[in-house]
Amino acid sequence: MKARVHVSLKPGVLDPQGKAIGNALASLGFTGIGAVRQGKLIELELSETDPLRARATVEAMCKELLANPVIETYAIDLS
Amino acid sequence: MKARVHVSLKPGVLDPQGKAIGNALASLGFTGIGAVRQGKLIELELSETDPLRARATVEAMCKELLANPVIETYAIDLS
Repeated sequence: MKARVHVSLKPGVLDPQGKAIGNALASLGFTGIGAVRQGKLIELELSETDPLRARATVEAMCKELLANPVIETYAIDLS
Repeated sequence: MKARVHVSLKPGVLDPQGKAIGNALASLGFTGIGAVRQGKLIELELSETDPLRARATVEAMCKELLANPVIETYAIDLS
């Protein structure tokens, strides 16, 4: 089973990396760009085949290591 | 219109950051983890409302700045 975890900064948390990307895009001539936010994408291969248990495991991984719950949110996709 | 760009390393390209995450998860006691890959997630707000033109613009942004087409692939989600 494959899990994809999207980790992104909570709304309101300053994102200087996203800001830098937005500025770089503007300086390349792209227009009409609003807010830009950068997050992380983590892809995991799991030997677990039960979706419910896999989700619980990945949820625990997010809380313990993959995301900082103080400033980040995460979303889990299983396939 | 909102665009989400997933940038990940091509298969076969060494991913030390993903490897480090895999090792850290194993040392925390998580088992049954295969390959771990880390990528980037970039969220953009666009003033463009036509999905076709928005996709073309984001595709150009990926080629020029957001992804390194030599070692990375990207996927674009519009919403």
